[in-house]
Amino acid sequence: MKVRRDRIARIQAAMREQGWIAIVIVTHDDYRYLFGADRAQPRAIIPFQGPAELVAFTGEEPELRAALADGEVRVFGSVGGQIHDVVGRLRELAATAPVEWAADGRFKVGLQMWFHTPAFLIDLFRQVNPGVEVVSSDPVMDPLRMIKEPAEVALLTEAQRIAGLGMDRARELLRAGVTAQEIATEAMYAMMRAGAEGTSTPIYVNFGVETCMLHGRLSPAPLERRQLVLVDLTPTVEGYCANLARSFVLGEPDARQAELIATYREIVAAVRSGMRPGVTTAQLDERAHAVCEAHGFGKYQVYGIGHGIGLRFEEPPASTIIPPHKNLQLAEGMTVTIGHTVLAIPGFGGVRFEDVYRVGASRPDILFDYPIDPVVAA
Amino acid sequence: MKVRRDRIARIQAAMREQGWIAIVIVTHDDYRYLFGADRAQPRAIIPFQGPAELVAFTGEEPELRAALADGEVRVFGSVGGQIHDVVGRLRELAATAPVEWAADGRFKVGLQMWFHTPAFLIDLFRQVNPGVEVVSSDPVMDPLRMIKEPAEVALLTEAQRIAGLGMDRARELLRAGVTAQEIATEAMYAMMRAGAEGTSTPIYVNFGVETCMLHGRLSPAPLERRQLVLVDLTPTVEGYCANLARSFVLGEPDARQAELIATYREIVAAVRSGMRPGVTTAQLDERAHAVCEAHGFGKYQVYGIGHGIGLRFEEPPASTIIPPHKNLQLAEGMTVTIGHTVLAIPGFGGVRFEDVYRVGASRPDILFDYPIDPVVAA
Repeated sequence: MKVRRDRIARIQAAMREQGWIAIVIVTHDDYRYLFGADRAQPRAIIPFQGPAELVAFTGEEPELRAALADGEVRVFGSVGGQIHDVVGRLRELAATAPVEWAADGRFKVGLQMWFHTPAFLIDLFRQVNPGVEVVSSDPVMDPLRMIKEPAEVALLTEAQRIAGLGMDRARELLRAGVTAQEIATEAMYAMMRAGAEGTSTPIYVNFGVETCMLHGRLSPAPLERRQLVLVDLTPTVEGYCANLARSFVLGEPDARQAELIATYREIVAAVRSGMRPGVTTAQLDERAHAVCEAHGFGKYQVYGIGHGIGLRFEEPPASTIIPPHKNLQLAEGMTVTIGHTVLAIPGFGGVRFEDVYRVGASRPDILFDYPIDPVVAA
Repeated sequence: MKVRRDRIARIQAAMREQGWIAIVIVTHDDYRYLFGADRAQPRAIIPFQGPAELVAFTGEEPELRAALADGEVRVFGSVGGQIHDVVGRLRELAATAPVEWAADGRFKVGLQMWFHTPAFLIDLFRQVNPGVEVVSSDPVMDPLRMIKEPAEVALLTEAQRIAGLGMDRARELLRAGVTAQEIATEAMYAMMRAGAEGTSTPIYVNFGVETCMLHGRLSPAPLERRQLVLVDLTPTVEGYCANLARSFVLGEPDARQAELIATYREIVAAVRSGMRPGVTTAQLDERAHAVCEAHGFGKYQVYGIGHGIGLRFEEPPASTIIPPHKNLQLAEGMTVTIGHTVLAIPGFGGVRFEDVYRVGASRPDILFDYPIDPVVAA
């Protein structure tokens, strides 16, 4: 456990600018980012000033106190106790905060509201803290978290390297009669043996027409010759997420399969050459669109060619989730995928090749240069 | 894909009683429960009358139309389009619903708000549907979903059997120097080879003092002789969740380890003998408490000895998440775990043995009778 007091201090400065009394941490990714460790129920309060406070169960106390010498560890023996504790602490913070931060007598508290914050938790939080206005913590957390430190890029690269090992294993299993379950099982095993904690999404292995699905879980029927295959792997390393997707054809591609593959390779090249600071996902989508149009696939394009990636599998910009993110400008140090959206002919099949890049001053660096080698001997 | 029109009809009847115009499905578990299949972005509208409506991306359309002959499939090519579509459809439903269902001119729409509904999605939904009051779909869905059909119990049993295969593999790996990562890797491999889709939570493998953590991820340091070990496995089969936890000691247990193990075995027996229709988690916790007190461990008890389990890993009653659930009465046909909470001496270690039961008319049936055999030869 390595408390990142530098990051906490920057967050507190940003909170004070916003006039928030606290950020309450409820997700693994925020917890790892600030405390350099993980717990099954990651809970902490970052007050607008003073040390961060972990909220722990009785049995966790000795270990956390040992790790967090100059912080506070609040301990409880039941969920009811925890809720009561946090409510009380927020009241204390409100009593010491500048009165001008309150609107209509209510002080603002930030919480992350992304995929790993369940809706009921926010509703419950609002119920028990009626004197508090809950706001998304994004405006404080995102500017800091979007720009990755070199050590973060190294972990993302390691995760991507491990995804490559899983993809190697998946590719070598491709033969008539193999099942998606078998490929997923062996790919997961290869990745966990190499140090992955697991995957941040289910493993997706799709055959034939099911490659049209956006992220289509495991196909039920075994692979047949001449079918398209789509494998999407998302192992994590110390919480940092990989995203590697590859399309294959078992045997010689037919004309449409070959055209889809060629088009997607062009899309990746076009987007990659346009990825630099100041550019938006909408602008990258325009580049992809020009390629799709040139191949007569314009009407099949799904917008949102890339997304941010880090301690969360999808981070800003995430335009396929939050449409306004399509206008978010890239900055140097952001890590972003290219290849998120499938190019699919409905009822036929789809392809994509997805990798992770770091946005550089003039061009993006691919984190791990895994080959695009889609034709597998049948 | 097997649309469960019987379940949809029962839900629609319950919705009309509540005066809701629709339930919007956004989670895998609800989607599987109603449509007998899964998609990566499961989205559907259950109107208060008429056929269920799947909301699909362009590429998914042919497959879904083939499967859902007499339903509607709404198709979109962007997230913005999907949102617009759903907003419009809810307006139509409001226009045809009995006016007396509206409070202050707003009609109610149910959404699940459990762990897999992200908070931002509910906030976004509220923003784009200002004419609608969002309510938790629990009052309609839970009464139906809590009582498991025999086919559901069979899938839960299969998941639990597969968890047993993972636990066999974990146990046989226990030796000085083994890592938690190695155990998790091999257990996952054994479970996926047997047909598990993956796990519904990370695999937890803890050694020594880290067995105090509630659900403590993977211990970083290798296993040493005489340490306590805790393994918690949660494979899924067709979305149905297993939950099997076992404690072990590598070598002869010391007196406190032996006392913790003996106490937990007594807790399980006491709770199991009291589990029947009409009983609450609070009452089961009292039984556990009497055992803890008798062994001098009363102050270390964490309340919430069991939780419901099904297509969600934790379902009602889930008193460690929603405290009022401790007063929810069990009913025949519910599936519930015993052994959810760790009995831990802070700074020393903790134990638990967790299995899944079906509540019967007079006594619970354990779904899969996996041995409690905690002493492993060093």
